[in-house]
Parts: sequence; C-alpha cells; structure tokens
Amino acid sequence: MSLARAYTNIALVKYWGKRDVAQMLPYNSSLSLTLDKFYTETSVEFTDQAEDQFIFEGQQQPVSAKLMRVLDDVRQLAGSQQKAQVKSHNHVPTSAGLASSASAFAALAVAASHAAGLELSRRELSILARHGSGSASRSLYGGFVLWHAGTDDQSSFAEPLSEQVDFPIAVIAVLVNQQQKSILSGAGMQAAVTSSPYYSAWVKTAEADISRMSAAIADQDIAQIGKLAETNAMRMHATTLSANPPFTYFAPETLQIWELVRQIRTKGLNCYLTLDAGPNPKLICHMQDVSKIVEILNAEIPNLTYTLCQPGPGAKLMTQ
Amino acid sequence: MSLARAYTNIALVKYWGKRDVAQMLPYNSSLSLTLDKFYTETSVEFTDQAEDQFIFEGQQQPVSAKLMRVLDDVRQLAGSQQKAQVKSHNHVPTSAGLASSASAFAALAVAASHAAGLELSRRELSILARHGSGSASRSLYGGFVLWHAGTDDQSSFAEPLSEQVDFPIAVIAVLVNQQQKSILSGAGMQAAVTSSPYYSAWVKTAEADISRMSAAIADQDIAQIGKLAETNAMRMHATTLSANPPFTYFAPETLQIWELVRQIRTKGLNCYLTLDAGPNPKLICHMQDVSKIVEILNAEIPNLTYTLCQPGPGAKLMTQ
Repeated sequence: MSLARAYTNIALVKYWGKRDVAQMLPYNSSLSLTLDKFYTETSVEFTDQAEDQFIFEGQQQPVSAKLMRVLDDVRQLAGSQQKAQVKSHNHVPTSAGLASSASAFAALAVAASHAAGLELSRRELSILARHGSGSASRSLYGGFVLWHAGTDDQSSFAEPLSEQVDFPIAVIAVLVNQQQKSILSGAGMQAAVTSSPYYSAWVKTAEADISRMSAAIADQDIAQIGKLAETNAMRMHATTLSANPPFTYFAPETLQIWELVRQIRTKGLNCYLTLDAGPNPKLICHMQDVSKIVEILNAEIPNLTYTLCQPGPGAKLMTQ
Repeated sequence: MSLARAYTNIALVKYWGKRDVAQMLPYNSSLSLTLDKFYTETSVEFTDQAEDQFIFEGQQQPVSAKLMRVLDDVRQLAGSQQKAQVKSHNHVPTSAGLASSASAFAALAVAASHAAGLELSRRELSILARHGSGSASRSLYGGFVLWHAGTDDQSSFAEPLSEQVDFPIAVIAVLVNQQQKSILSGAGMQAAVTSSPYYSAWVKTAEADISRMSAAIADQDIAQIGKLAETNAMRMHATTLSANPPFTYFAPETLQIWELVRQIRTKGLNCYLTLDAGPNPKLICHMQDVSKIVEILNAEIPNLTYTLCQPGPGAKLMTQ
C-alpha cells in the first residue's frame, strides 16, 4: 500500500479551456501558488480483486472515467493487469471552500505509480496527474508553479518556479456560498471556448500574463502579483459573460467582497481578488495586513468564513 | 421660445466606445427601443443676454461643454451670435432609474434648432443630438431605432427601423440602486477601448448583432430580441471586466435579478435582461407576462421598484 499527500493550489494565471479534451491539453499556460491549508491523502494498493474500487471518506464511490484513466495509465506503464483499491481523504478546515480535484489527482498520481512499482520523475508524475485534472499537474510542486501548455502529451507539464517562497505572501480564502456550482468548471470552460468571441484574445492575454507574473514573483512584488492575478481572473470571467448564452460564476456576495477589496486598497493596503470557476474569492495580500483586512470585511459582511493560507509544499509519498 | 419633448431609449445592441471622441463617432452601430415612461422637456430661447444660461428643474446650473457644443452648432448653422436661455425638466416616475442624457440632448436639439429659426431634417437633428450625447441620436425617433456608426460626422446618424411597434413587447425597468455611478459611462467605455484585449472582438460581435436584431424585430420575435439583447449586453459588460484595471457596473442585486430571470425562463416565460453602464436592469418580455414576472421578483426581493415601459414616440416640438 502506498500513501501520498498533495496540496491544493490557486491559479494566479488561470487554466481556462482545453485545446484537446481527450489528451487534457490546455490552450494556455497557467501559473499557480500551492497552498498549505488543504490537502488530499490517497492510498493505492494493486491487488487481484475483480474491479477497481474507490473509497472516499470511508464510503465506496463509483470509479469515475478520470480516475480510471489515471489507473489505466499506471497499469500500462507498469505492464500490469491488477486492479486498484483507492482510498482518499480530504483534509480541509471546516467550510474553507477550497476543495478541488487538483490535490486529489496529484496525490493519486504519486500513490498509484509508487504502488505499481514505478519510479516516475516529477515531470512524469505531473503529466500523469494532468490526465485526471488539468490543475493537478501543478499540485506536484510547492510554491509558485508554471504549467507549460505544451503542444502534445509529453510537452504539457508543470515545473516549479520557486518551491521555497521567501516573502510574506498570504491568501485569504473566503467562503461565501456552499451551494453546488450550477456550471462545473469543465463545462464552463468548454462553453467559453466554443461560444465566446473573446476566447482567442483570452489565450493571448493569458500567455502574456505568464511572463509578467514570473517577473513579479522574481521581484517578490506582492502588489504586482495581486494586480496581475486580479486582472487575469476577471479576464477569465469575462469569457463566461461573453459566452452564448452568457453565464457567470459570481455570486452577489462575490461582487460585495470585490467592492470591499477595492475600498481596502484606497486605505493603502495591498489586497487583490482572484476567483476560480465558483463564487468563493481568494484575497492576495501581505501577511502583515491579514488581520486588518479580515476586520474590515467582517465589519461589512459579518457571516463569512475565512481561511488564512500561506505557500504550501509539493506532493509527497508518505510511505516508503 | 421653442419647447420640445424627447423620450429615453434602451439599447438592445449597445453603443460602447468612441472611435473619435471630439466628433462623437462610435466604433459600432447600435440599436434601441424608445420607451414611453420617461421624457425630458426642454425650452430654448435665443436672446441678447451676455451668456448662455441653463436652468434645470428650476435651478441655475453651469453650462456643460456638451451643452455648449450643441448650442454653438446651432448658432453656426443659423449664423447667429445670440446667447441661449435653456430650461429643462425631466419627467420620470418616482425612482424609475431611467434618467439619461439621451432624452435631454434629443429634446435640446429639436428646441434649440427651432428657436434659432432652422428647419432641420430628422437626420440633421439626429447628428446634432449626437454631438451632445451619442445615445441621444437615437431618441429622435420612436420605436426601434438604428444608429449607423458611420465613418464621419455626416454619416453617423440614427434612423427608425419601425416607429410603430405592432407587437406586445414590454420593458420592465428595475431600480436596484440609486447611488451615483462610480464610473460614468463615458469614462467606462474609454477604459474598455484602451485597455480591454477583447475590445476589437466586441466591435465585430456588435456589428453582427445589428443584422441579427433587425431580423428578430422584423419577425416580431420577442424571445429572440430578448436573447440577443441579453447576450449583447453581457458582452459589453465583459469589456469592463477585462479592462486594466478591471471594473464592473453590476451591483450584487443585479446578479440576484439576473439569476431570478434565468429561473423565470425555466418556468416557460420569456424574460431577458439588459443593462447599460449602471446597475439597474431592464427586463424584456411579453406584455401578458409582466404581472407574473413582477410577482416572482417581488417574492424573492421585496424592496425593488418596477416601472413598466412600452415602445415610446420620437422627439417632437411642443410649440408652433
């Protein structure tokens, strides 16, 4: 039995749109920060049982096509026919709103490949995780991570920009809405690709953001990182507003918080908002400003839940 | 003294972005419906007084650059040096949230040109009104109106598509927020033109929407008119979300109402949302569905104000 742990990540330059759905190749490169507050632990054991088995939080669940894809990849690389027993737990602060498939498939890639006796490089693990979920390719690494869009299966992988983060960047995850998303991220990006007249311009602007964001990270410039992340996120969300029919992941509370974030900036604090395919914002700021920012938010919107995150580590094997 | 009245209009294909700020030439053609519930009455008299005078709702106000521009145009056409006394009243149901410069400059163009002894064609009046406010070029006419973007001053004018509207289209104006807009429409469109990577695609999609919308109007297809209007409006608003820095005219309540509008559609009612450069939505529907729609909205959001509008008439002279 092999056990692995992987942390979730927040994209500062978003992954948004698949160029090749079967191969899970993205249209644009993306760049993320791995976070320290939420992780998935997954164990895998290959046995002579009749079928693959997936137990999530102690409950047997159907084996999804994506899970099967990763297990099949591993079996093919290992020349094995054995079926897998996969057990997975999410470790998440109550109501953090941080759950994602990124940590799940990164942990799966590490655990399953080790359980099959493979010794894959981190690049190979990143590609394997990508087959389950695009953003999982980034959760192989800690700190700031770049996922190269690539042009084919072997050239589309993530690599670390800086796994050790030596400056006080913080991410405040705000939970505004625990309702199930009405449009899942996969369906949303596909709708944007096929029906937004702005999609091709999105791809260009995101690629340009990669070098701007890399420079801001090298400069340890938290304000510039935040500014670029907010602009990039809103350009991603503009592709849903411009789809046919138009839709949005924003909840009313998302707009309230964005308005407060702009007010906070007028007080001289660096605070920027980013948002994935859901209504819960993540605020990018300096560690030293966190309590002031949360105080201001609390005074205006009393019933929100906040989770303070810092840069987190890469995926790792917990068994030897 | 010449007195004129002009009604406001709601754009179904939005005017968004000036190709030439001095000449008030737009990047794209736009298409509107003149509404019957809000109008401006303006009187103009040319006298031997020392300065132009502007009295709005009985109060003396500074003469804005735009007002001066229209008065100067009229003086030039009439070969006159006389100064103008301009008095203006807005007639608006309490809290309709419908005020705009469109009705104001359309009424001014009609009153001022007549007061100066000019006999301008409606096309000439449309161009004159455009010099004060782009959307005013459309309020010269009733019903459905097309403003040709044109390529120079004389080719950028509005003309009616159908002044008499023979089908039961209704517009419910919803007031969510009476606060002053933080970003005026002129500044917002300029920010989108200069900093959204999606702006050129907006111009293309808006021009394509003109022929689609004209066809839907010819077909008297209210659902298709609404669907195209909602998609066009959201593509306009996507240019603010993609600007640098990003911004939005949406208020939290705007999103709440849009979500309700989508729910209303699942009940089989045709109801679509459009929105100018501010938070107050206008809902496009059949007259027969108005009470059901307002009932559903009221049940969910009790404190909103609604104004039911139908197609309105063009600008006209009230004195002979």
